[in-house]
Amino acid sequence: MAKAPVLTPQADDFPRWYQDLINKAELADNGPVRGTMVIRPYGYGLWERMQADMDARIKAVGAQNAYFPLFIPQSYLTREAEHVEGFAPELAVVTHGGGKELEEPIVVRPTSETIINEYFSKWVQSYRDLPLLINQWANVVRWELRPRLFLRTTEFLWQEGHTAHATQEDAREFASRIQYDVYGDFMENVLAMDVVPGRKTVKERFAGAINTLTLEGMMGDGKALQLGTSHELGQNFAKAFNTSYLSKEGTQEHVWQTSWGSTTRMIGALVMMHGDDNGLRVPPRLAHVQVVVLAIKDDEAVVAKVREVGEKLRAAGLRVVVDDRTDTPFGRRAVDWELKGVPLRVEIGPRDLAGGTAMLARRIPGGKEPVSLDALDTVLPKALEEDQARLLQESRDRRLSRTVDVATVGEAVEAAADGWARIPWADLGAEGEAKLAEQGVSVRCLVAEDGSVPVADDAPGTVAIVARAY
Amino acid sequence: MAKAPVLTPQADDFPRWYQDLINKAELADNGPVRGTMVIRPYGYGLWERMQADMDARIKAVGAQNAYFPLFIPQSYLTREAEHVEGFAPELAVVTHGGGKELEEPIVVRPTSETIINEYFSKWVQSYRDLPLLINQWANVVRWELRPRLFLRTTEFLWQEGHTAHATQEDAREFASRIQYDVYGDFMENVLAMDVVPGRKTVKERFAGAINTLTLEGMMGDGKALQLGTSHELGQNFAKAFNTSYLSKEGTQEHVWQTSWGSTTRMIGALVMMHGDDNGLRVPPRLAHVQVVVLAIKDDEAVVAKVREVGEKLRAAGLRVVVDDRTDTPFGRRAVDWELKGVPLRVEIGPRDLAGGTAMLARRIPGGKEPVSLDALDTVLPKALEEDQARLLQESRDRRLSRTVDVATVGEAVEAAADGWARIPWADLGAEGEAKLAEQGVSVRCLVAEDGSVPVADDAPGTVAIVARAY
Repeated sequence: MAKAPVLTPQADDFPRWYQDLINKAELADNGPVRGTMVIRPYGYGLWERMQADMDARIKAVGAQNAYFPLFIPQSYLTREAEHVEGFAPELAVVTHGGGKELEEPIVVRPTSETIINEYFSKWVQSYRDLPLLINQWANVVRWELRPRLFLRTTEFLWQEGHTAHATQEDAREFASRIQYDVYGDFMENVLAMDVVPGRKTVKERFAGAINTLTLEGMMGDGKALQLGTSHELGQNFAKAFNTSYLSKEGTQEHVWQTSWGSTTRMIGALVMMHGDDNGLRVPPRLAHVQVVVLAIKDDEAVVAKVREVGEKLRAAGLRVVVDDRTDTPFGRRAVDWELKGVPLRVEIGPRDLAGGTAMLARRIPGGKEPVSLDALDTVLPKALEEDQARLLQESRDRRLSRTVDVATVGEAVEAAADGWARIPWADLGAEGEAKLAEQGVSVRCLVAEDGSVPVADDAPGTVAIVARAY
Repeated sequence: MAKAPVLTPQADDFPRWYQDLINKAELADNGPVRGTMVIRPYGYGLWERMQADMDARIKAVGAQNAYFPLFIPQSYLTREAEHVEGFAPELAVVTHGGGKELEEPIVVRPTSETIINEYFSKWVQSYRDLPLLINQWANVVRWELRPRLFLRTTEFLWQEGHTAHATQEDAREFASRIQYDVYGDFMENVLAMDVVPGRKTVKERFAGAINTLTLEGMMGDGKALQLGTSHELGQNFAKAFNTSYLSKEGTQEHVWQTSWGSTTRMIGALVMMHGDDNGLRVPPRLAHVQVVVLAIKDDEAVVAKVREVGEKLRAAGLRVVVDDRTDTPFGRRAVDWELKGVPLRVEIGPRDLAGGTAMLARRIPGGKEPVSLDALDTVLPKALEEDQARLLQESRDRRLSRTVDVATVGEAVEAAADGWARIPWADLGAEGEAKLAEQGVSVRCLVAEDGSVPVADDAPGTVAIVARAY
């Protein structure tokens, strides 16, 4: 008799598989208020590693961290017309504080452009104060009617960068640097995710931006997920909040701005990009647990050995957990670590010990093989590097094999049932985009023929990437 | 003519000095919603260093980070009677979300005991699941009628730890370990703050706790500030949320719990403990900028040298900023770095360069002296270690010299005008405590004769530390 699967198989019901995995791998639970989530320690460990790596990249491009208030006066939101129109339907509003009704209602930040511009307008006086490059790690709230853990939650965690520059060129270059050096490079080289850099159409832009740059990833079911966006805000917020500076030439000028964000949604992407029917597969460079060393049986020599091996591997620079909880059956523990996607399992029982070996189980390519105990500290780092590369390759292969060139809206909709479609933007246009929308399909981004990001929507040779999206 | 002071002198008006320093050192600004604050990059840099050090300590005692929702159903708060009574007057309430009035109002978390117990009650099943040791870094909101930056703000940042244990003894030991190994050791050895560990009286306990442990520091004006508390919650929340486990013996038992928190208030303490009339003085082990290397003049060789020295000191493991902004007058930049409390300034001009020296300005003891450029990487680390020790010694000397033993409530009130009073708790008691409160004086904590923390309020020889407090 075949074992019952631990998760609903992907092929049977992808959304259900996703929900099962999030629960059983103990990544997150639903919160009591609709759309909120509890990020459990194993899931939060992934976020902490993402934060640490991204934070170093953000600092490397010159931005400094700061913290702005959660609460924004409602009146701020209304100062930039497109911005309030975009966010009004998603706001959570505080009407009572300290036991009294408030004179002016307060909005829980859905994003911080408005409150940050209020302070930028005080802090920026002269060209000497520019560029001003600020980032914050924070929670934000956007009321969500169809929540899904990590992908769309009423409250989520993110970093939001906000910058002010003397010229449009400087702002444009900075937004692009974030898209490539901070987000793109991180997703590709740490998360092992194939992502496509592009620009959003006017319809899909951030509310208040003059241009939105995006990175789009193809999930295991062929749908697209937007991961990290970088916006040129032009002078829209600068004019609304009068953020201006005295130039070298003695004239008063409005600043040019950018904002950019990446969120806990990246954890959802990790699951849908790398997960399989046995659970998550965590890219080794990200993994907060790269190796788990398991004692198969409650045997004194075995338990001593797994602890010793754990120490040795830690000394070799690996991130290791020793699992000597022999009061829980070995099979159950092995399945749990598999669900959690720990790249390597080193399993040691009395027989292995006698032979001077351990069984090495590799989560990413699959399979088990015995390895000499003495060789673990050289074999494991090599396996981790191979597995990192393999995940990226798999995700790239998926996108390439499931993307097709099409010529009509009808063909695009058909292709989007199973993957992505590419269609010349000159042939599709805003009208075609509206027709796609009626079928639940959207233009994920515009790219140039050579894969670079076009400088304008109507640049010759611009191609639209079309897909269903999360 | 004497220069006008940069800050209101401490002796003239301590609260005004504090406010001036926070503004001019660019630590924080008031937020637009009453009681909220904007933590500026220099202030946030202090918090980031606090977080990193504390986080390592929290992990070292075995706790894991997680994240629970900002929004708590109002009904959760009411389940623990003392807890709701304590927090009800301070709540911010969300009544509208996504454009509609909510069926049940939502509270913005003032602390997370209730929502965390809701999940602990699901996650804890067996004695194998204990102890469960969770921490989160988050923002919380407590409506503040008399706000003061960092000390009392409507929104503040903190870490809150929440643990569940099989026995009362285990919970008690863990709460004590947090008080000493995490908070006390950090404050003394990183923040260079003299702090007194003690237990709170019943009147001063956390709402819902059976015992609160505290660390109290004496500020520059002789007042006390509570810094980091660790609570034994007994089984109060466990019973309210039915958080129970199956024991080894097969019986169903409620868990014993702790919670513990430390906040951005520590930045305010840093200012009031170590600041002087010229600004902040940051303890070297905490400082995100330990050394600033300043170019005195816009001279090519000078600018090249400060950059070279900066690189050399970074290579020696110091945290360094190079200030070559020669379009701003040197004197103004020097005053700014002094205000910000950077421990060491290395100032280089053409004459220094000619002599192969730099001028070393030491913020903590004060004074300037020339140092050979070649000797900087050996002289500076030594100076930083000396200055770290000096700050701790100064704060300890202050407390010892401004604490007096008294015998009556009247004497205690008199002593509290300038410092702290010690009075046997058996002589004071709850009745004396109430009389002190009428004069705006409180029992900060109870300590044993030998400086340890008494196991009970009525332990023989227990002494009350009495003071005015922030």
